[in-house]
Amino acid sequence: MTRRLTIAACQMGPIARDESRQSCVARMCAMMREAKGKGADLCVFPELALTSFFPRWHIEDEAELDAFYEAEMPNAAVMPLFALAAELGVGFNLGYAELVREADGTKRRFNTAILVDKTGKIAGKYRKVHLPGHAEHEPWRPFQHLEKAYFEPGDLGFPVFETLGGTLGMCICNDRRWPETYRVMGLQGVELVVLGYNTPSHNPPVPEHDHLMWFHNHLSMQAGAYQNGNWVVGVAKAGVEEGCELIGQSAIIAPTGEIVAMAQGVGDEVVTADCDLDRCEEIRRQIFDFALHRQPQHYGLISAPKA
Amino acid sequence: MTRRLTIAACQMGPIARDESRQSCVARMCAMMREAKGKGADLCVFPELALTSFFPRWHIEDEAELDAFYEAEMPNAAVMPLFALAAELGVGFNLGYAELVREADGTKRRFNTAILVDKTGKIAGKYRKVHLPGHAEHEPWRPFQHLEKAYFEPGDLGFPVFETLGGTLGMCICNDRRWPETYRVMGLQGVELVVLGYNTPSHNPPVPEHDHLMWFHNHLSMQAGAYQNGNWVVGVAKAGVEEGCELIGQSAIIAPTGEIVAMAQGVGDEVVTADCDLDRCEEIRRQIFDFALHRQPQHYGLISAPKA
Repeated sequence: MTRRLTIAACQMGPIARDESRQSCVARMCAMMREAKGKGADLCVFPELALTSFFPRWHIEDEAELDAFYEAEMPNAAVMPLFALAAELGVGFNLGYAELVREADGTKRRFNTAILVDKTGKIAGKYRKVHLPGHAEHEPWRPFQHLEKAYFEPGDLGFPVFETLGGTLGMCICNDRRWPETYRVMGLQGVELVVLGYNTPSHNPPVPEHDHLMWFHNHLSMQAGAYQNGNWVVGVAKAGVEEGCELIGQSAIIAPTGEIVAMAQGVGDEVVTADCDLDRCEEIRRQIFDFALHRQPQHYGLISAPKA
Repeated sequence: MTRRLTIAACQMGPIARDESRQSCVARMCAMMREAKGKGADLCVFPELALTSFFPRWHIEDEAELDAFYEAEMPNAAVMPLFALAAELGVGFNLGYAELVREADGTKRRFNTAILVDKTGKIAGKYRKVHLPGHAEHEPWRPFQHLEKAYFEPGDLGFPVFETLGGTLGMCICNDRRWPETYRVMGLQGVELVVLGYNTPSHNPPVPEHDHLMWFHNHLSMQAGAYQNGNWVVGVAKAGVEEGCELIGQSAIIAPTGEIVAMAQGVGDEVVTADCDLDRCEEIRRQIFDFALHRQPQHYGLISAPKA
């Protein structure tokens, strides 16, 4: 088994509100075929890749809201992607809205991502921990960001998975801005963190920072890569989706923090890089030798419960 | 009391092994006068600003080693700096090697920094937590990095201090690469983190990363600023010191992560910026609203004792 993975950042352009899952899956299948042609071992797709980014709408009708969620995974609509992965021998990372029905009928909702191996089997699952946005409808906004209403915080922590010849972990969108995300996985030896995002270029409460969206996107991922010595692959849903501009800049970032590949546009686009997982040691055996240099007795505030 | 501080990053060029403390202090006093002329409220000087960066040498003679340390602070050699601070009404941050004699005669050694207020009074003290380098003499290296031999890890944690009209914290050199450094202070409401560094451009165990030294310096500080919404002022001892090249790039970084001022050379140089401490709220009331968004129940590994 080689330690070199060819990774494809499969950026997606906008998904319309009325676009079917079948259409989204067909777009992803086309990118997976292109990625395979470039030698890809793993395709990374965006957050909520099966639907439009619905937290931008205030949706009061429960059935209307439920329609954006997957009650099971895989399901009929996504089966072509799983089948193609197995046929081509390509793994993938997919973000989607997850609906869980408890035995008592309670519904639970998560912003979820899965890691699928080269046989088409789900090898790992992650539920977004850091939900941004707000929980109440705020009519003054030009668009909503109701993730705190439509999802509960992930309850799986930041697990890592031995698959595809390495130690892989996932996070989703806003998680990438929090150094704890990478560190908790780094302490478990993660070599590759994959993530998808839907990031509006306009943040209504602080428009004075809109021009920094692109900078902050890369800054967070580059720091997370360097400070833990792992690869980071961040993949956007990009472009103007239902009137809301989403940033692109999907990037493959080396354990040195360097961007080694980046999307050039804001549509469906496949960007690949050959990622040698053994390069993680370059960083980890020196500056970030955790065993040698960390001083956790001084980090207590970080994991202390919130006041 | 205003919330706007004019901060001077007072970068220093090389300090020769035989240069006296009096000479170093005179150089700092000259920069403090220049900074005052630019309206400075606070001068930030480098790590170990009173001597050459002596961990590059393997020193076996204890008296020879002790000569690099300060047994008290302030002391006669640095009094002109304290007096000038009080005279001009300018605070400062100073790094030095600290020698503590316990009652039983035991010597303890720390890589220390102090924060001095506008009256010339010590308002805060910090001892470097993350010591880089090695503890044993490694003759194969072109120069040593014996911080782990010459210092013990700081035992004061990452305290913050209410002084100069804001909430200030310190760290030193390698500390700036660790996200925990900024986060522990961020959770205490720090608005300005000041730090000095001596960073060789060549890291003998991983020379393949030498070209990235400048990038990693800024990446770490910019991420620490953005991810906590605080100002960061990082100040180098720079230039070729006793045959060892040290990077410059002293920078004043806004809570957005943007570098708003940077040294242009590698010698003694004063760079100032007007830093509005109220800008920290721009970041903290949104993306990094800790109370709203942090999920510390998933961060336990970070402060768990080392295995």
